[in-house]
Amino acid sequence: MPATDLQLVVPTNADGASILGIARNIELFEPGDIDTIQELWAEFTAKGDAASWYHFVAARRDGQVLGFACYGQRPLTQGTYDLYWIAVDKNHHRQGIGEVLLDEAEKQVKARGGRLLIAETAGKLAFEPTRRFYLRSGYQLEARIRDFYSPGDDLVVFTKRL
Amino acid sequence: MPATDLQLVVPTNADGASILGIARNIELFEPGDIDTIQELWAEFTAKGDAASWYHFVAARRDGQVLGFACYGQRPLTQGTYDLYWIAVDKNHHRQGIGEVLLDEAEKQVKARGGRLLIAETAGKLAFEPTRRFYLRSGYQLEARIRDFYSPGDDLVVFTKRL
Repeated sequence: MPATDLQLVVPTNADGASILGIARNIELFEPGDIDTIQELWAEFTAKGDAASWYHFVAARRDGQVLGFACYGQRPLTQGTYDLYWIAVDKNHHRQGIGEVLLDEAEKQVKARGGRLLIAETAGKLAFEPTRRFYLRSGYQLEARIRDFYSPGDDLVVFTKRL
Repeated sequence: MPATDLQLVVPTNADGASILGIARNIELFEPGDIDTIQELWAEFTAKGDAASWYHFVAARRDGQVLGFACYGQRPLTQGTYDLYWIAVDKNHHRQGIGEVLLDEAEKQVKARGGRLLIAETAGKLAFEPTRRFYLRSGYQLEARIRDFYSPGDDLVVFTKRL
């Protein structure tokens, strides 16, 4: 099905189980990642989209959440945002849902006054599809911090000017 | 006076006013920086050094706090630490106190199992002395994210392998 069938929504409490379920099924996400997503989700639902430092956007089809993105302003910067997470249900990969979510996150960041979006990812082989995703979405490979995550596993920083 | 007169201590609640006073007098620190230092200090004193995600070390001479450093493990990494802040009372600059604090922070990070210490600073002219401080302390210029803090003001990332 084309990604145009998707509804992009601000998720509510009721979507929490779906969003965390999608995250838990992503093999690249480690337990620490899941804990962090859970913390950010808790703050987002407790404070609401207007007051939260973190913002979520979800993609739904026929009422089912198929993916989400989470972003937020980087503290102590003017107009710089981080794309913290972007994840699509593993049964719905290769349908363009990630691209639609990324595009929506960029639009929302821009609407909030953001000018620079940062996507941090890992340098190891398993993240090659992730790195290709950012490159074909117009991101630049901006910086690398060697051995950041663990010895041999670099932090790779992509940026997009909005 | 030589920096060897300094006592390096884990600061307690009673040192909070001195530490925040030193930070407020650093012209390079902006109001948002001070708020962040205050938040980290509050967590550190509430949880205690063992449980806190953030750790402070203070340099005292004759009972007076002359400087402090604050560091902590970077979430989702194995053995990577951030040096969040290092500041010396502006009446006691050029006495080697910053070097002593940096050296102590590195030793503490290593003792906690850290292997990589990251010091993030800004690319603008006012931070040239800060950048020189890291370079002469054995840090490498590892990465740069253009326009990170604001248009024209880059993030400059220094690293040291411990």
